[in-house]
Amino acid sequence: MSLTSPNVLALSGGVGGAKLAVGLRDVLPSEALTVVVNTGDDFDHLGLRICPDMDTLMYTLSGLANATVGWGQEGETWQFLNAMKRLGGETWFGLGDRDLATHVMRTRMLAEGESLSAVTAKLMRQLGVEVAVFPMTDDSVATEIECQSGDILAFQHYFVRDRCEPKISGVRFKGIAEAKLAPEFEALLDADALSSIVVCPSNPFVSVAPILELADSWLKLKAMNCPVVLVSPIVGGEALKGPAAKMMQELALPSTALAVAEFYHQRYPGLVDGFVLDEIDANAAAEVAALGMEPLITGTVMKSAEDKQALAKDVLAFSESLAQ
Amino acid sequence: MSLTSPNVLALSGGVGGAKLAVGLRDVLPSEALTVVVNTGDDFDHLGLRICPDMDTLMYTLSGLANATVGWGQEGETWQFLNAMKRLGGETWFGLGDRDLATHVMRTRMLAEGESLSAVTAKLMRQLGVEVAVFPMTDDSVATEIECQSGDILAFQHYFVRDRCEPKISGVRFKGIAEAKLAPEFEALLDADALSSIVVCPSNPFVSVAPILELADSWLKLKAMNCPVVLVSPIVGGEALKGPAAKMMQELALPSTALAVAEFYHQRYPGLVDGFVLDEIDANAAAEVAALGMEPLITGTVMKSAEDKQALAKDVLAFSESLAQ
Repeated sequence: MSLTSPNVLALSGGVGGAKLAVGLRDVLPSEALTVVVNTGDDFDHLGLRICPDMDTLMYTLSGLANATVGWGQEGETWQFLNAMKRLGGETWFGLGDRDLATHVMRTRMLAEGESLSAVTAKLMRQLGVEVAVFPMTDDSVATEIECQSGDILAFQHYFVRDRCEPKISGVRFKGIAEAKLAPEFEALLDADALSSIVVCPSNPFVSVAPILELADSWLKLKAMNCPVVLVSPIVGGEALKGPAAKMMQELALPSTALAVAEFYHQRYPGLVDGFVLDEIDANAAAEVAALGMEPLITGTVMKSAEDKQALAKDVLAFSESLAQ
Repeated sequence: MSLTSPNVLALSGGVGGAKLAVGLRDVLPSEALTVVVNTGDDFDHLGLRICPDMDTLMYTLSGLANATVGWGQEGETWQFLNAMKRLGGETWFGLGDRDLATHVMRTRMLAEGESLSAVTAKLMRQLGVEVAVFPMTDDSVATEIECQSGDILAFQHYFVRDRCEPKISGVRFKGIAEAKLAPEFEALLDADALSSIVVCPSNPFVSVAPILELADSWLKLKAMNCPVVLVSPIVGGEALKGPAAKMMQELALPSTALAVAEFYHQRYPGLVDGFVLDEIDANAAAEVAALGMEPLITGTVMKSAEDKQALAKDVLAFSESLAQ
């Protein structure tokens, strides 16, 4: 491998993954990066197919994202939702007026028989996104939250409607046994020509696990001739975005970066070669190393474009060092 | 019949019909008015079921309508349409952000198996519309424009996308032979308990004809024990809204109120008992009378609420006089 011909695969959930994807996009030639995105959060709402993680990637990579809230578009308006309320419709999921165009376009193209991969490629192209971004699958995989109450909640009902309030006992992925990898994802795995695999700082249980467990892709990723580097989504005991830390507590795991490393070590043994820790978690480095993962300590909190680029460079250099 | 227990059926297309419907609503007890609306303009667009005439009725009766342009909602915004343009989607049909909620709700309810009548009743109720408003049918009837070029255009393609520019040679209603009257419309016809039937000032060819020709409803309306009063949609040689006058010219008819009366006389002989002419067309009264229709000359241009109420009162008093 050489930095003159990188070929990087990033696995991503929503907000955190999208930030690192932007960093990687900024520091790599556009043809050198492919992002494969979790679709377990996707759902049908008001007759529309909604792909929250993919839309976060799309809006972030195209510069349309609302950086403050981490979802939707900057300057979004809410006339549709106000009108839905007046009509007695469901309003718990925040569908902005601009965002709606994405869902209406996608739903119509899917109904016409196009694959989610093809729809995604078209939408990304229209918004000027030059890196390759694909869903993990064109089939339906639905993340469901098993609650301590015994209830089973569709992910967005748990995440948005119920604001992550129910205590969880587990997570399952409906349809994952029958789902196939998206063709582009499968082709990447079959070609084995990657220089680096980056697991973005995304929720291990609901963002990364669906990708890794789909068709046991993690076994293929593990067997590939390149390093797998994972960036911890837990920094200083907290998730920067989303319910990862709360989930860990409810699953009787410490909400620490080390516990994330242990989770991957147990569930996907031998997959992760390098584990990127934030400076605040430097004291976990020795224990991470004891799990057989090389630790890298660096700043992982991405606020500015420079933060994203710096982390991307660190991750790529780390990966290169592991490949030697 | 007595004014203390009126039972009025109004047949309506879009803008002109909606105005008179508001007038009738204002001067009648709410339980005394039923409006049956043309659905021939309805179409599927971007995966959404859109009912332009019904929506015009709904927005007008609920006070949400944009009175300036005659369609859509007052204060409507266009973020969705801007975003669709960016995504390379179709933007020729003006779907406002608020308006979209109507189409999304309706499409979802129809997909769940509810009838258009039931969906309409729910949406009207949510918006506080107290009079009964029903589609002419719950089935699909699609108005198609036969062009002099030989092209056949779906109505909204002709009307909105092509701005009524193609010259027409005829109009046809796809599916009308198989379509059934909406249950509420059929029940009204069967009960024969109406005090008055009002044909609103709507386009004869594309707004009123679909209603009258659906299951030959005009024969039942004609046979009913009450007057049928029609308000001319042509005033001073022009349609106040829409392409009626242009269509008449292309169909080799003079674009006059008298030609409207002649059209009804020939196509639905004996249906219309009273024909309401604007004062500007007073000179046609004798010729209208010669067709066997009683003429009424009054102001028919409805700009203010008072105009609408005055015309509604005139029409109802005229009908009462014809019933005696």
